[in-house]
Amino acid sequence: MPTYKAPVEDVLFLLNDVFNIERYNNLPGFADATPDTLAAILGEGAKLCEEVLQPLNRVGDLEGCRRHDDGRVTTPKGFKAAYDAFAQGGWIGLSADPEYGGQGLPYTLGAVMNEFASSANMAFSMYPGLTMGAIAALLVHGSEEQKKTYLPKMIEGSWSGTMNLTEPHCGTDLGLIKTKAVPNGDGSYAISGTKIFISAGEHDLTENIVHLVLARIEGAPEGVKGISLFVVPKFLVNPDGSLGARNGVACGSIEHKMGIHGNATCVMNYDGARGWLVGAENKGLNAMFVMMNEARLGVAIQGLSQSEVAYQNAVAYAKERLQGRSLTGPKSPEKPADPILVHPDVRRNLMAIKAFNEAARALVLWTALKADVAHRSDNQGDRQAADDHMGLLTPVLKGVLTDVGFDNAVKAQQIYGGHGYIAEWGMEQFVRDARIAMIYEGANGIQALDLVGRKLPRDGGRAVMAFFNELGTFVAENAGDDAMKPFVRPLEVALGHLQQATMWFMQNAMAKPDNAGAGSHDYMHLFGLVALGYMWARMAKVALAKKADGAHMNGEAARMDAKLLTARFFMERMLPETGAHLARISTGADTMMAMPAEMF
Amino acid sequence: MPTYKAPVEDVLFLLNDVFNIERYNNLPGFADATPDTLAAILGEGAKLCEEVLQPLNRVGDLEGCRRHDDGRVTTPKGFKAAYDAFAQGGWIGLSADPEYGGQGLPYTLGAVMNEFASSANMAFSMYPGLTMGAIAALLVHGSEEQKKTYLPKMIEGSWSGTMNLTEPHCGTDLGLIKTKAVPNGDGSYAISGTKIFISAGEHDLTENIVHLVLARIEGAPEGVKGISLFVVPKFLVNPDGSLGARNGVACGSIEHKMGIHGNATCVMNYDGARGWLVGAENKGLNAMFVMMNEARLGVAIQGLSQSEVAYQNAVAYAKERLQGRSLTGPKSPEKPADPILVHPDVRRNLMAIKAFNEAARALVLWTALKADVAHRSDNQGDRQAADDHMGLLTPVLKGVLTDVGFDNAVKAQQIYGGHGYIAEWGMEQFVRDARIAMIYEGANGIQALDLVGRKLPRDGGRAVMAFFNELGTFVAENAGDDAMKPFVRPLEVALGHLQQATMWFMQNAMAKPDNAGAGSHDYMHLFGLVALGYMWARMAKVALAKKADGAHMNGEAARMDAKLLTARFFMERMLPETGAHLARISTGADTMMAMPAEMF
Repeated sequence: MPTYKAPVEDVLFLLNDVFNIERYNNLPGFADATPDTLAAILGEGAKLCEEVLQPLNRVGDLEGCRRHDDGRVTTPKGFKAAYDAFAQGGWIGLSADPEYGGQGLPYTLGAVMNEFASSANMAFSMYPGLTMGAIAALLVHGSEEQKKTYLPKMIEGSWSGTMNLTEPHCGTDLGLIKTKAVPNGDGSYAISGTKIFISAGEHDLTENIVHLVLARIEGAPEGVKGISLFVVPKFLVNPDGSLGARNGVACGSIEHKMGIHGNATCVMNYDGARGWLVGAENKGLNAMFVMMNEARLGVAIQGLSQSEVAYQNAVAYAKERLQGRSLTGPKSPEKPADPILVHPDVRRNLMAIKAFNEAARALVLWTALKADVAHRSDNQGDRQAADDHMGLLTPVLKGVLTDVGFDNAVKAQQIYGGHGYIAEWGMEQFVRDARIAMIYEGANGIQALDLVGRKLPRDGGRAVMAFFNELGTFVAENAGDDAMKPFVRPLEVALGHLQQATMWFMQNAMAKPDNAGAGSHDYMHLFGLVALGYMWARMAKVALAKKADGAHMNGEAARMDAKLLTARFFMERMLPETGAHLARISTGADTMMAMPAEMF
Repeated sequence: MPTYKAPVEDVLFLLNDVFNIERYNNLPGFADATPDTLAAILGEGAKLCEEVLQPLNRVGDLEGCRRHDDGRVTTPKGFKAAYDAFAQGGWIGLSADPEYGGQGLPYTLGAVMNEFASSANMAFSMYPGLTMGAIAALLVHGSEEQKKTYLPKMIEGSWSGTMNLTEPHCGTDLGLIKTKAVPNGDGSYAISGTKIFISAGEHDLTENIVHLVLARIEGAPEGVKGISLFVVPKFLVNPDGSLGARNGVACGSIEHKMGIHGNATCVMNYDGARGWLVGAENKGLNAMFVMMNEARLGVAIQGLSQSEVAYQNAVAYAKERLQGRSLTGPKSPEKPADPILVHPDVRRNLMAIKAFNEAARALVLWTALKADVAHRSDNQGDRQAADDHMGLLTPVLKGVLTDVGFDNAVKAQQIYGGHGYIAEWGMEQFVRDARIAMIYEGANGIQALDLVGRKLPRDGGRAVMAFFNELGTFVAENAGDDAMKPFVRPLEVALGHLQQATMWFMQNAMAKPDNAGAGSHDYMHLFGLVALGYMWARMAKVALAKKADGAHMNGEAARMDAKLLTARFFMERMLPETGAHLARISTGADTMMAMPAEMF
């Protein structure tokens, strides 16, 4: 059975030493985020994830969710108690507005807890995760009455939330939405239609479920400009806040899926359900987009989370499993064979996952801090710069962390040999669970297109220029430091590739947009490698500084040496892939577009 | 529900036009392999796979195998009738020795049928597949009496076969085998021990099951030099060939696995079972190695097979699913959206799979033809050269076709968006089924080490030198042909990378063997890319020649244009990855080996 230990120490290194979270203490909610408080909060969160959520991960996979004939859906044994524990710990409202019962702590802490919870039990973590997404949407777009009605209950955990976008004929292309909203004349609308793939659409964890639903008001313009957002509670809410009648929304069936069995993926039938407009008429997509950055960051974290937990188990197995002898002579001559960790190919795989995980975690936290600045700073310039960063990095994080996270789960599974394929060892579940993150919340191909087609050109390229500028400055400032050379020089080369690729699009994709689509996947991964490389260079700088400071307490020097070795591995073996990405981008779209459809 | 159409036309192009199978008609069994006969045989095989095996693929996944309390194992509904149809069609003994009831046709045809059957139903195809492996082992190593006793029944399909290698504590490292063989004094041995991961170890498809078992004869030397091979039938065989008493071997449990649910993966308990030595005492591993090339080629074909069937379904979906508009303006303005095949990123994924599949199929057939030469030619030089090729290419095929085959199944699943994650669409089954091929029959890390550590240096590098020579000659002969330039020039560059990497090992891995282990995975994939690139260059040459010949019948010109486009895509976007592999190989092992075990 797999185990999990939350990487609290690594998070504290990032927050305290690399990103110096204390310098944000002018932002609301950050004043209390001292190193000691951070350690205490994360320690509590880690304990809950390790002791309560993780033991339910395999149970959830085996048992799955069950829909009863009356439309009720029951979650796996233990999920209800775990949800209550999660809610009672205050984790759902960790970063939510204190006005509605939230703790108001940094969103960044919420991102950390998301990683821990998702590593421990991805299917479970989606129930509170979707609730947090719905809370965020209502906070930004809901009316005061809507906020007062729904938020306190959702934050305390007695009600949960969902997002209803997809329909059978429309996933990526939301302009095709058919679900109808007809005004009832009392300010409410009658919502009718079918939504599919609704995670946590129905379950037995909470008293009420608050559905946020995209629908088209009768007579609205066609396409994405005629879509509005509605709040549709499972049970109507009486004026005093108590639960009233059952609304006309029901779970028609649940899907049998490759993974995340513990989460109910529902077909939701809306049959004249009463709903209330959230935000402006026909502006539903805008309302969605505002919360999409954070939802996508949440999915990116899922990719990292499966990579991390799969890695931890693969390392443990590689230290225990005795098979073969080291190529350089027996390392455990007293045993019948050496632990497989002695084999370079096993180390190569583990180092590749480690080098990804630690930099991906840094990238998540760096971006989460930007989200906090974007939402909480009172400096307009800081907010805009942070928002630019979020917009630019979000598709990169979503696409790269989920693609590579899945690959890493596969790599970790491979360490187990045949046992990796057997369910009871748990590794194959990580692979199956990780797979969905590449698909939902905008399939990764869409992320790549969003990056190249929308985020790059936006505001005259302001966001990407700022990114290049930050990295270029870092390279220039550290180029003269001999100890930093092994990290700065490869970063400089990779940044050059990214800049060339960006230039190539500017020169070749305006006249022929297919050239952008043909190169978008490679560009996204090229961008991700550069961003991860920058994280490693920054971590290496901190590690060198700490070593120079003579920090030897608690094995810190050994940990810093490990950081430097891992950084070096990334620079030697992972970052150079940028050249191949650039080469592919530069070949353009002609060959693939020339193939007649019937010859595929 | 997924569908499957066997790529008969593509196989005939390869056998007739690219590899000119008629020039082998001096070999036994090849005389009848005229284009018409080939087409007829493959057409029959295709029909069986499409109409009988494929419809059982999802049934097998859903229902799985079931072990009853008495140790019996039942296979999914329909498998028994399908097995009978497969056997009655003569497919089990297609290439087996006519002396024992086989048809004596080329092994190459058997490889083609393996691909078709595995695409249609991978879990099912393992039952006849393992039987064919056991037949091959007995043919080479069995005594005349053993052959007469077992082969006719196995070839006709009334008995099946298995391979028993793995034990709980020993997978890769067969030197750790503990299963014991004690002489009974009558020429037989009493076999006792536990074997795990035994595919098709117990089932209800045949009257008897013939287990080939690795065990250690009492007093044998330690390690791999003390392992012998035994034949252990489930039911003992009376002198008249009829079935006698139940032998002391039983299925203790079956595994719950990620995929191939239709195949029973058994724990087999041997409790004083009567077995007979196959081949010489303590030479069991040699006996295994002889048949390993073909078993590994069979697993390579499984990788290709899942890539192919997943591709076919993804193409069909991409033509039907309407979502979004082309970047260059609507292509189906009369519809609510364009089919997603208009999007470059969808085409990029499909082209990448197509470019792999067609070259991988060529590589399989090229190598299968070498196997036929190695086993059937009466020219010693030809046999040796063909055997060298088999030895060298087998780990490349096994490792690369299963790694990339799995990746391609994942890519094809991604085309489906959310539907790809839902079981009833069938795409996620291809991913789960494909995953095992990277693990069994020697995990891919072991294939890479076999290539670098054993196959490269063997006989002073004779095999790899011959390979380089063939490719170098092809490049030299075609370098002056302008139409071939887009294919020859990239191949030349990639071949240069492979030669540099080979040289790097010669210079750096002798003194420090970890450098070989650290680069082995990249070397295997670098080798695979070059071999696939060579296949594309040869196919392009044939396609250009056929176009020059003015062949326009049956849309052949369009098919040849598609070949040329796909070849170009491979050269532009896939082959250039060789540079990144070379770069990684050249960084060596130092960084990964420096990490202390406790810092992983």
